[in-house]
Amino acid sequence: MEEVFAVILAGGAGVRFWPYSREMWPKQMLDIVGEDSLLRQTIRRLEDFIPPENMVIVTTEKLAQDIKFHLDSLGPQAKKIQFVKEPIGRNTAPAIGLAAVHLHHLLPESIMVVMPSDHAIPDKEKFLKDLRLAIEGARGNGLVTFGIKPDRPATGYGYLKRKDSKQSERKSLFRVERFVEKPDFDTAKKYLSERSYFWNSGIFVWKTATILSEIERQLPNLYETLREIEHLLFGPPQLNKPNEPNKLNKLYSGLDSVSIDYGVMEKCTDVWMVPASFRWSDLGSWTALDDVMEKDGAGNIIRGNTVDIESENSTILAGERVIATIGLKDMVVVDTPDATLVTSKGRDQEVREIVERLKSRGREEHLLHRKVEKPWGSYTVLEKGPGYKIKRVVLKPNGRLSLQRHKRRSEHWVVVSGEARVTREGEVYFVHTNESTYIPSDTKHRLENPGEELLQIIEVQNGDYVEEDDIERFDDDYGRSS
Amino acid sequence: MEEVFAVILAGGAGVRFWPYSREMWPKQMLDIVGEDSLLRQTIRRLEDFIPPENMVIVTTEKLAQDIKFHLDSLGPQAKKIQFVKEPIGRNTAPAIGLAAVHLHHLLPESIMVVMPSDHAIPDKEKFLKDLRLAIEGARGNGLVTFGIKPDRPATGYGYLKRKDSKQSERKSLFRVERFVEKPDFDTAKKYLSERSYFWNSGIFVWKTATILSEIERQLPNLYETLREIEHLLFGPPQLNKPNEPNKLNKLYSGLDSVSIDYGVMEKCTDVWMVPASFRWSDLGSWTALDDVMEKDGAGNIIRGNTVDIESENSTILAGERVIATIGLKDMVVVDTPDATLVTSKGRDQEVREIVERLKSRGREEHLLHRKVEKPWGSYTVLEKGPGYKIKRVVLKPNGRLSLQRHKRRSEHWVVVSGEARVTREGEVYFVHTNESTYIPSDTKHRLENPGEELLQIIEVQNGDYVEEDDIERFDDDYGRSS
Repeated sequence: MEEVFAVILAGGAGVRFWPYSREMWPKQMLDIVGEDSLLRQTIRRLEDFIPPENMVIVTTEKLAQDIKFHLDSLGPQAKKIQFVKEPIGRNTAPAIGLAAVHLHHLLPESIMVVMPSDHAIPDKEKFLKDLRLAIEGARGNGLVTFGIKPDRPATGYGYLKRKDSKQSERKSLFRVERFVEKPDFDTAKKYLSERSYFWNSGIFVWKTATILSEIERQLPNLYETLREIEHLLFGPPQLNKPNEPNKLNKLYSGLDSVSIDYGVMEKCTDVWMVPASFRWSDLGSWTALDDVMEKDGAGNIIRGNTVDIESENSTILAGERVIATIGLKDMVVVDTPDATLVTSKGRDQEVREIVERLKSRGREEHLLHRKVEKPWGSYTVLEKGPGYKIKRVVLKPNGRLSLQRHKRRSEHWVVVSGEARVTREGEVYFVHTNESTYIPSDTKHRLENPGEELLQIIEVQNGDYVEEDDIERFDDDYGRSS
Repeated sequence: MEEVFAVILAGGAGVRFWPYSREMWPKQMLDIVGEDSLLRQTIRRLEDFIPPENMVIVTTEKLAQDIKFHLDSLGPQAKKIQFVKEPIGRNTAPAIGLAAVHLHHLLPESIMVVMPSDHAIPDKEKFLKDLRLAIEGARGNGLVTFGIKPDRPATGYGYLKRKDSKQSERKSLFRVERFVEKPDFDTAKKYLSERSYFWNSGIFVWKTATILSEIERQLPNLYETLREIEHLLFGPPQLNKPNEPNKLNKLYSGLDSVSIDYGVMEKCTDVWMVPASFRWSDLGSWTALDDVMEKDGAGNIIRGNTVDIESENSTILAGERVIATIGLKDMVVVDTPDATLVTSKGRDQEVREIVERLKSRGREEHLLHRKVEKPWGSYTVLEKGPGYKIKRVVLKPNGRLSLQRHKRRSEHWVVVSGEARVTREGEVYFVHTNESTYIPSDTKHRLENPGEELLQIIEVQNGDYVEEDDIERFDDDYGRSS
């Protein structure tokens, strides 16, 4: 099976899970369902079947570094996972096309298992069993997908209609008669009763060569650009070669945003479906948690620091702050340190619009969390005021920040647990719990945790400008630079 | 009119306005309606008519000091306001009785204007006009109250039934036929149509002697205890005098909690009513804001940092954190830095139960806000973790904390704006913006703002115990001691 590659789509912003998801911490990085982030669960689901060197993560330039750090906890094997970086998000057809260009160069006879990184699939063994069937189908040059048997008249999913009459000779593979857009409630009820309609899972298996020739037929403009990109990346070296990354950026950014379903699948004739034996949710909105999380007797999903009186069929997700609720019905309440969402379940898709409004107001609550994960640990912004900012900075054992310098702020560090090794210009010294030190502006410095326990410091920044981009990095363990 | 005294009841906890109100920052201290706190508005409403030396605030021992500080902003005249302190809250009959004991001793022929401190009355002039009528009524030995003309079938108020047939010869004074408990909705609709029913405002005017003799008749046990308290406070000195504050505490704490309406008024025959010409709300719950605050076109009251999509008839009160709402109907959402309430309007009275549950869990969100007002300024707890606590401390110009000492914590102070004068044991020194200092545990210290601008410091406390009660005060500008 060494020709089978997993192509994991991890470029999405998942704005419908705001305020948990943020532009720089999208849905695939959230631990909302199961014991790990959706992306890490996606990789673990495949790892017994597809080796890490055959895994390709497609994501945006902007997210790639954070996603790499995010995979560190999977162990050293995860370092073998390859990354294909989109200069900017352009929906699934260009993303899959770009991955296909890479894979076709690597191994022309390769087979792609294309998976979103932000779906919930709790039954690993059943999934792998079905995946084997789909791969068999793909070997026959078909485009194969998975149909999920509906258990309710869902209006949030697209549907596949199975061709009942002509079952394939290949066992458990069915021809797909057509793709159907998200239906209204009455149509969804009809689909549910007819039994030949399935939810479109968005997971696909095909030969790299097959999808490329389908793209050529259905989306000739995209195909043309992919050929140019292929030439840029893998073509013969030329004299007076133009600046390639810039050229690639320009080519890719000029592509239309189009999904593989709409752009390719709906128009193809040779599409097949494996009826999935595994449970699945695309987690397309807060309400989708109803399908995958355990509820109390009144139909509520309640987590975190809450006090509830007689709510029904509601989702209440709190953190450390108290969320008190009385008599909610069909509501979703989601709290984070800097933003809270309260919505009726029927309208949770409009979270997108909330994110748009925050963006247009120039706010930051759609962009970042207060707590930001870093390869060396994390920092949390506790408060920001005129001329100052306060952070709690936590360093893992042996973690260290880059050697850096700030032009417009000084920093006071108070160690509240552990021990810090501080570099300040030439000087190196230790700061213990309940001691403090001062880093003037325009001074090269570095913070390290030389110990075996966590190092926690409170950092008080002072200056006329206290934003993150006032940083000049001179040396960094994690390959970051200014 | 020097025999007219205002008795302002300010001992209530106002738990139905949680999370804005807290046990140590009750409803009367909130700026929820109008431009100032309800208590300060209550005083300002009366101040052209009753001089401050004729004002008596009845409140609990626990709240008295914070309420005194809270009145500082009213200017030096406010220092003349007298305080009657209840050892513990015991509802309005004992509170009014205790005030009557004091006033009777001061001036036997005094007239009491008894007012809650947490009602909204936006029409000052109309209120004072009606008050004059009520005082005339009280001079004739009647118990006089104010009836509010209903404009909707409210079920949250008690009612007064006016005796239509026998209007008093005193102009605009009506006899009250009976008091009626909060009705159900159908009864309230009947009351609204009959026009002889009025809301019971809980504002009363009577001679001190009259209410004392009514208490004697209706609540003989209370009267007996009040006589003992009078004897303790104002009786002839005795040899082997027992510890008076303790005795008073014991006597008062032993009283039954009973309201003046239920305990006295409902059983009296000589009760009169002035039909109020002023607008009024008792602000008995979050929904009561509907009567007094301005709404948008969809019937919403929306304040603070919010993003709303098509909510209707809802109240959304945010602070600095973003509260995003979609499609709410008849809901109340109230956010504070450490707690958020989401309730359907019909059940907002059950906030009491939320507060009870927080209490029983040993939490602090019902007790204090993160930001605590102090006579010298304020402090805000930014974070508390194992072994540390971080505060932003703001000192007004010329404000200074007590000379104090902590046994179990040290403190790092970073000045983020202004200039600090620091006393540390014998030493006195200045700390400027972007400088820091360290106060070891077990060290006498004092923080002062000698300047004309605000002083803001970030305090990082370290120690095995970082609670507020680890403080020994040696000298305090505000009369506090350990």
